[in-house]
Amino acid sequence: MDLETYLKKTADEVNILLRNYYGEPKTPLSKAANHLLFAGGKRLRPALFKLSADAVKQGSSPDIMAGGLAIEVTHNFTLIHDDIMDKDEFRRGERTVHTIWGEPAAILAGDVLYARAFSLISLTDAPDEAKVRATSLLARTCEEICEGQQEDMSFEEREDVVRSEYMEMVTKKTGVLYGTAAAIGALLAGGTEEQINALYKYGCNIGAAFQIQDDLIDLLALSERSGKDQASDIREGKQTLIAIYAREKGIDLKPYRRDLKASDISEVISILKENGIITSVECEADRMVKEAVLGLSVLPDTLEKQLLSDLAWFFIKREY
Amino acid sequence: MDLETYLKKTADEVNILLRNYYGEPKTPLSKAANHLLFAGGKRLRPALFKLSADAVKQGSSPDIMAGGLAIEVTHNFTLIHDDIMDKDEFRRGERTVHTIWGEPAAILAGDVLYARAFSLISLTDAPDEAKVRATSLLARTCEEICEGQQEDMSFEEREDVVRSEYMEMVTKKTGVLYGTAAAIGALLAGGTEEQINALYKYGCNIGAAFQIQDDLIDLLALSERSGKDQASDIREGKQTLIAIYAREKGIDLKPYRRDLKASDISEVISILKENGIITSVECEADRMVKEAVLGLSVLPDTLEKQLLSDLAWFFIKREY
Repeated sequence: MDLETYLKKTADEVNILLRNYYGEPKTPLSKAANHLLFAGGKRLRPALFKLSADAVKQGSSPDIMAGGLAIEVTHNFTLIHDDIMDKDEFRRGERTVHTIWGEPAAILAGDVLYARAFSLISLTDAPDEAKVRATSLLARTCEEICEGQQEDMSFEEREDVVRSEYMEMVTKKTGVLYGTAAAIGALLAGGTEEQINALYKYGCNIGAAFQIQDDLIDLLALSERSGKDQASDIREGKQTLIAIYAREKGIDLKPYRRDLKASDISEVISILKENGIITSVECEADRMVKEAVLGLSVLPDTLEKQLLSDLAWFFIKREY
Repeated sequence: MDLETYLKKTADEVNILLRNYYGEPKTPLSKAANHLLFAGGKRLRPALFKLSADAVKQGSSPDIMAGGLAIEVTHNFTLIHDDIMDKDEFRRGERTVHTIWGEPAAILAGDVLYARAFSLISLTDAPDEAKVRATSLLARTCEEICEGQQEDMSFEEREDVVRSEYMEMVTKKTGVLYGTAAAIGALLAGGTEEQINALYKYGCNIGAAFQIQDDLIDLLALSERSGKDQASDIREGKQTLIAIYAREKGIDLKPYRRDLKASDISEVISILKENGIITSVECEADRMVKEAVLGLSVLPDTLEKQLLSDLAWFFIKREY
């Protein structure tokens, strides 16, 4: 099976399971909590969870998949709260929870998903010891994600963010949940310590690389292709790796913090390309994926190991 | 030891443990998360947790107290989020988190405490099976608290809330966390199913009674005594049990939804007393406490059992 087929199959499975668990909301709050969860999404985290579980134990119990849902539900909780903080009005082509139900209900909707994530961990079919460790890891990860979001917001008021700060922020905000998806998959399926640790690092690396690729897409992908506003990060003065590398080379992006015409965008891209910024950022993402894939050597050779490798490369090869 | 001494001793212990765990915040967000947690509070929930643990197993391990902290931390997370929703500016004599750090950081500060609660459960000294059950119960409880808060907010737009709706709301918003404190205490200390269930019900009952008593205090206690605005619930048209019983008797409290003078408050109190409303509400709280105490019969006769009984009565005897 190729990666695309695998991702499609897992996404379908996740959607069915989510419907089974939460498909009949009994309260208005439950409906608000379901809104984003049922608005689609690529379900990459549960796919990573499942690949990791099957990579350490072929044909792992289907009932551990509740752990994969826990990660997806956690991701959705963070999105609902982030959207409130960032005042975003749309996500996955739908209006955000707070624009429909108001901020108080949206805070609670996120809190409901947060609770469900931990309920789901308890529901998995795995030894209790593994569940306790998974709970502990997920809890630590949630705290780190919050720290990452707080750092990201604090960057908005700064002009002097350095590489290491960006990497720490992006690892917390995006990396650790992928790391946790992979680690909990291996943990609940009975993987060795070495495998669990390697998969955690793998996930952190590809998660951070994913975000760096997102920043590249924001700059380089035409709106018609990506469905997003091209170069919005430049316009908003976001402290991405691109902006940081540019500053290191003495390139001033501040003049571009305004409504950009297509020709302005082309100009910025040209300047960044000429100065090797784009290549440097691509190399950084590439380096992280290589490191991630290298770490997979602790796994036996299986289809899942191959798909984990493919997934890592897919994270930075996607163009939108 | 009498209840007052016990509560004081446990509160001191809780404060020391919280300092040990979180006393040196390393990030601005961690500081925001600590703010309310370290602003005092009666620490009634961890006291109930500990009483329940010791009531089922004399001299339970001191290391299960992390479970008591988990409940206290959960309580504080809900307060931080509630204060955002209710736009409250002060709590425990301090400015609320969102008024100091802003709403985005306050949402995250609550989310950080939420994570810590589940981390703490994993840290307790108890069999893994008990920890998994405790995690599951705490998660379900968090979802119910959110539902209770949502119901409470929805009551603000209604005039027709009935007793059963109020009781359901108050049980979810306040009762279940007390129930969970007691149940998890017994669960982690190795209590029987019967004891765990009885203590859960006991906690739910006294928690709901506590809230009803709060409503009575709001109406009856002079501001100088309670430190709160007298009769604020009447002024805001809150759907308390008092308001519901009054409406059932055909008493219209709507004209009092305005700035009330001391004489207006006396007038309302007189009308409510003459019509037996105050007594009826007191009887309801009394009934719940009696039911709670009756449920304690599954416990062996110990000092802790006596203190649990005293705690239940204290919840509705306090005058501010």
